[in-house]
Amino acid sequence: MSQDEATLAALDRYIDEHLRRVTWRPKRLTAIPSVSSKGEHMEEAARYVAELLDGAGFATQILPSGGFPVVYAESGERDRRTLLCYNHYDVQPEEPLDLWDSPPFAAVVREGRIYGRGISDDKGQVISRIAAMRAVRAVTGGYPARVKFAVEGEEEIGSPHLEPFVEHNADLLKNDACVWEFGGVDSEGRPTLYLGLRGLLYVELRVRTMSRDAHSGSAHNLPNAAWRLLRALATIKDENERILIPGFYDAAKAPGEVEMRLFEAMPSMEAFTREHYGVREFVGGHTGLEFEKAVYYPTANIAGIGAGWQGPGAKTVIPAEASAKMDFRLVPDQNPNVIFDQLRAHLDAQGFSDVELTKIGAERPGTTPADDPFVQLTARVAGEVYQKPVVIDPMVGGTGPVWAFRHFLKTPVVTLGAGDPLSNAHSPNESMALDQFLLATKQMARLLVAYGQGEG
Amino acid sequence: MSQDEATLAALDRYIDEHLRRVTWRPKRLTAIPSVSSKGEHMEEAARYVAELLDGAGFATQILPSGGFPVVYAESGERDRRTLLCYNHYDVQPEEPLDLWDSPPFAAVVREGRIYGRGISDDKGQVISRIAAMRAVRAVTGGYPARVKFAVEGEEEIGSPHLEPFVEHNADLLKNDACVWEFGGVDSEGRPTLYLGLRGLLYVELRVRTMSRDAHSGSAHNLPNAAWRLLRALATIKDENERILIPGFYDAAKAPGEVEMRLFEAMPSMEAFTREHYGVREFVGGHTGLEFEKAVYYPTANIAGIGAGWQGPGAKTVIPAEASAKMDFRLVPDQNPNVIFDQLRAHLDAQGFSDVELTKIGAERPGTTPADDPFVQLTARVAGEVYQKPVVIDPMVGGTGPVWAFRHFLKTPVVTLGAGDPLSNAHSPNESMALDQFLLATKQMARLLVAYGQGEG
Repeated sequence: MSQDEATLAALDRYIDEHLRRVTWRPKRLTAIPSVSSKGEHMEEAARYVAELLDGAGFATQILPSGGFPVVYAESGERDRRTLLCYNHYDVQPEEPLDLWDSPPFAAVVREGRIYGRGISDDKGQVISRIAAMRAVRAVTGGYPARVKFAVEGEEEIGSPHLEPFVEHNADLLKNDACVWEFGGVDSEGRPTLYLGLRGLLYVELRVRTMSRDAHSGSAHNLPNAAWRLLRALATIKDENERILIPGFYDAAKAPGEVEMRLFEAMPSMEAFTREHYGVREFVGGHTGLEFEKAVYYPTANIAGIGAGWQGPGAKTVIPAEASAKMDFRLVPDQNPNVIFDQLRAHLDAQGFSDVELTKIGAERPGTTPADDPFVQLTARVAGEVYQKPVVIDPMVGGTGPVWAFRHFLKTPVVTLGAGDPLSNAHSPNESMALDQFLLATKQMARLLVAYGQGEG
Repeated sequence: MSQDEATLAALDRYIDEHLRRVTWRPKRLTAIPSVSSKGEHMEEAARYVAELLDGAGFATQILPSGGFPVVYAESGERDRRTLLCYNHYDVQPEEPLDLWDSPPFAAVVREGRIYGRGISDDKGQVISRIAAMRAVRAVTGGYPARVKFAVEGEEEIGSPHLEPFVEHNADLLKNDACVWEFGGVDSEGRPTLYLGLRGLLYVELRVRTMSRDAHSGSAHNLPNAAWRLLRALATIKDENERILIPGFYDAAKAPGEVEMRLFEAMPSMEAFTREHYGVREFVGGHTGLEFEKAVYYPTANIAGIGAGWQGPGAKTVIPAEASAKMDFRLVPDQNPNVIFDQLRAHLDAQGFSDVELTKIGAERPGTTPADDPFVQLTARVAGEVYQKPVVIDPMVGGTGPVWAFRHFLKTPVVTLGAGDPLSNAHSPNESMALDQFLLATKQMARLLVAYGQGEG
């Protein structure tokens, strides 16, 4: 056994021995209901993450961002190459509560999985990475590269302050390679490396047709806000899923040759997805390669809609007000701020200037080239840890502030984490498999060691 | 002063003296939150109404209906002509609570009006009529006609059991003239007599596209229930308010010559309505005579719609389920049960057989001819009491189980009551003016006396 092999074996052993016992504390982090859209317990969650990083030998600061603070931490020698971990301590709302099998903020373990809001997205990943750091330090006596953490508190509300934060703190955050907040395996346990994330425009539409609700006996004369909103929404997307906002697709790139080759090489998640969500037919009848490459079709999703009486039985009312939340997932090189203006202009042009439009979140899409050496290194380490073929996916359907890191810091960004297709991120019964937690921690630890040795 | 005039003067005096003090008990009746769509406190409200009728010398029974019971009461000699009062003790839901200026079940008096859920629709009317009965008995020593009350508990949920109840109890309910549960004045204080009520079909539409909610990052493949429901709803009515269900208009009658003359003679409520609801433009641009006769246009109203995240801020979710409540107000001779079947067939034909459709309420429209002697008597008495021109309105936009009374009992039905355009029935801050309460009570008392003397 070479010295390298001995180190890696020792790392694995350390993680196996420590992880199942005391090293990680997902229970306590999950117990802090840091739902950023509600805005409570945010400082508490930040402080606890900082405490964990302190404990792993990092110099930690809680930095103001203009919104919820960013936990920043660094360790390792200054003259070494720098690896940055981007994570977040905020979580999605826990509702609907009645669909949870255990309390969302309790971190209950059942049959090899730990359940709780944010356990997969992203608190379990935070804990896993800190555990990996502790393992590397314990086994090698220090950090073989300079390591930074940036753990923000607004990822689930669209990171409204992260872009300026990264721009203004470019020197502090400067790095040579970045590990993104999430990652994991597909339904066959194959580690998946995502090369990009889509952008996001999140808006609220609200319309008021009267100063008060009215008895529906007057519906032949009094205007109904729900109907009005529905008419407005119907102008945004046609029945063939084509988004009708003029200019919407102008900056949208189709997948290139490299991406198409990667899509073709990817094992299909179609059957799993169909089963997991109980879906007979996908949007647009997507199947086969179309199912995979559809991530390059930007979306116009209704995340919520509400008006009038939603209680039991009958109430005969004309709602005076109606509102909807929509998110648009954007592909390179769409700009959410441009699209927000296009949407406003479209509603006006269609005669819906009475529909109020509020921007709740805006993030740009971003991708890393498949041939970047750090991508290749991450893929190689994943193959060694998981002992399975590695899937390289050109773009994940979700969103994160990756554009800021790519644009201001110019560093390659890879994904790595403990997620799997049963994680139910953003949904009731969010969970993380303990086995995956172990594997992701090992991958992070090995990646740091290899990177410190000059690979990637 | 003739004996008749002396009786009427004594009635007025009695009502003036007693009503403002102890005779009526709206506070206690309003305090019973008998919201039929929630189904609580229903027996309690029925018992209290029965107690009030007992106290006015009626033989009272609480009869099973298959749903919430009907309070039935009768008094007066059997060989006399019979006048039936139809009322209800159930109320609409009190929500949205935050728009009430005082607690909905407290019956608070402010500036000459009493506020509370159900005070106008229909508890104040129940109290007013019983007060009128007590006045007639006190002044004349008995009832000059046979009087019956039928006070049901399911009016606000579409009277699902009243049609069979009336059919099966036709002998018990037999009468020669019927006073409907509501009535009142227009914005100028002119008493308004409605000759008919529209029918109603109340349905719930529900669609499920997945077995669970999903992260909206998969919206390019996973089907959104809110979009699916919107597409289905859009097939029901076009942008010009034309209802697109095949056969929907087949049985719908246009207003005839008599009705058109009445519409032309009616003082316009257009300006008042525009102001009261803060509406710039009415549905279809209705104005002038069109605003009045539009009550003959059956409606397809969205009473409520809900899916996904409706809380503060952002949640990026694809809703797996979406639902809407709709009410269709129907004109003579549309049949809600036929239209329910037509709607189901329409959704199927449009490719929406996955949209579940549940019938929550169904009532047929019904009208009484303008030349009926009891209509003429009621109008004459209204003119005497209110000292204003009487408005005869061919049809009110609302609904009630009038068809059952017209069809099974063949009796003319008139409206009479303490409502006014500020009553906000079915809305927050529902109220009744104390002055109107007094006038409606006097009208009821005088109508009974005149009817007992053989008029009408």
